[in-house]
Amino acid sequence: MRILKTVKEMQLHARKLRAAGKSIALVPTMGALHEGHLSLMRKARIDGDVLIISIYVNPIQFGAGEDYQGYPRDLEHDMQLAAGVGADIIFAPTDEQMYPAGFKTSVRVAELEQRLCGAARSGHFQGVCTVVAKLFNIIGPDYAYFGQKDAQQAQIIKRMAADLNLGVEVVVLPIVRDKDGLALSSRNSYLSPAERRAALVLYKSLQLARDLIDAGERQAEAIKQQMQGLIQSEELARLEYVSVCELENLTEVTTIQPNTLIALAVKVGQARLIDNLLLETV
Amino acid sequence: MRILKTVKEMQLHARKLRAAGKSIALVPTMGALHEGHLSLMRKARIDGDVLIISIYVNPIQFGAGEDYQGYPRDLEHDMQLAAGVGADIIFAPTDEQMYPAGFKTSVRVAELEQRLCGAARSGHFQGVCTVVAKLFNIIGPDYAYFGQKDAQQAQIIKRMAADLNLGVEVVVLPIVRDKDGLALSSRNSYLSPAERRAALVLYKSLQLARDLIDAGERQAEAIKQQMQGLIQSEELARLEYVSVCELENLTEVTTIQPNTLIALAVKVGQARLIDNLLLETV
Repeated sequence: MRILKTVKEMQLHARKLRAAGKSIALVPTMGALHEGHLSLMRKARIDGDVLIISIYVNPIQFGAGEDYQGYPRDLEHDMQLAAGVGADIIFAPTDEQMYPAGFKTSVRVAELEQRLCGAARSGHFQGVCTVVAKLFNIIGPDYAYFGQKDAQQAQIIKRMAADLNLGVEVVVLPIVRDKDGLALSSRNSYLSPAERRAALVLYKSLQLARDLIDAGERQAEAIKQQMQGLIQSEELARLEYVSVCELENLTEVTTIQPNTLIALAVKVGQARLIDNLLLETV
Repeated sequence: MRILKTVKEMQLHARKLRAAGKSIALVPTMGALHEGHLSLMRKARIDGDVLIISIYVNPIQFGAGEDYQGYPRDLEHDMQLAAGVGADIIFAPTDEQMYPAGFKTSVRVAELEQRLCGAARSGHFQGVCTVVAKLFNIIGPDYAYFGQKDAQQAQIIKRMAADLNLGVEVVVLPIVRDKDGLALSSRNSYLSPAERRAALVLYKSLQLARDLIDAGERQAEAIKQQMQGLIQSEELARLEYVSVCELENLTEVTTIQPNTLIALAVKVGQARLIDNLLLETV
């Protein structure tokens, strides 16, 4: 496994791989790898001739007052985990490599960037799109892997890749959960034991939605109210939003239908947590 | 010479060329080709193994009330001219190919997009960046050619290509002028004979600036005032702006120095015309 730290090295190396006819599978991450990331890497390892993991805590996707400074960083441990799933290359650039002096360009996906998490995290998805467009251009992957936990991010990146003709297949894989149901997230490390228990309310509220739908409920508003009630009953949780929307455009729906996404964001202590349930069929 | 009309055909063809080790030189145009475009193509023909010309009147770079509908279009004649300089491929996509239903993505270069023409043409450079990013991604050129007449566009595209790691060398070539000095432009076709004579005032005002500088003038404001006076003396001309700025960031300067750009936009009849003078040394 090689570690590359400059854009130029990564570009040259990727160009050689492509010239040799190798297919490239990329898993873009901010490090602090967990089983969710590893599930992406295992699939990517199968799909591509070469598996590249990018590890970069992207400053421009964090807003003022968000957790950029405190975001967990442990490159040594991340590299062990990546080696364990057979990664070929780690691309771990510095900020100076990614955003040299004079940098002025941004990539946005209108409408989608405003919805769900976009309402409270102004500029976040612009930062995500910009860094992912750069990574795609530097590496030129055939496949790139994202987790369904960040459902909005996945939709936005799919849209961007199609709109800008980035020539990459964006693959979205299921949420990986702890035994008790909590969706894995690098930000779970912020939780105290009591907060960790409280954080379960995200999953429980999605289970409640699932139960209501299984029992025949189809009204989005009724489901939202039940979920909100459950979350508000958890003292350590502060609800940011519950959304019942259609997957592609993330617009709210009034009635549950195939490809409805139920998504929520909840603050627990210092952690802003998200989770969702995709109803592919109803 | 082949003509390709779909994104998929162009992508597949360009991929084959790159796989065969061919270098690609791209000249992106909106058609209505003139000697300025041809000068780019002749250089591109020398630099690249394969010369690709894109011809596409990009709707999203025209504002409300601008000349999108009336912009000159003559694909047959353009193809003859392109064949004459040895083009290998014409890429002439439809709007449905470039902006299919659901398109939502945009690329912007902050600050630079606001200056000079950006002040009066809100959204113009966002439209330019978005289409050029798409063309670069579809074709994957090694070199791409732009005219110095659109000095701001050239700087913005250079910045975008560097910032987004597009892996293309952006080549900017000198303004081509008619015998009397008028910068060639597809929009010159809008001019009546009287307007055509009046339009010379752009070049004359740049010559005046050149003369003042040669005589020792270094104050930007004094040069601007003289240029403005000359343009206002031409009845058929309506001055939009004169800018004396530094080339890279397009910020106004007070004193002429190396790499100062003197740029102006003037309306004559229905035509909005631009021209400029780059002072590489002083």
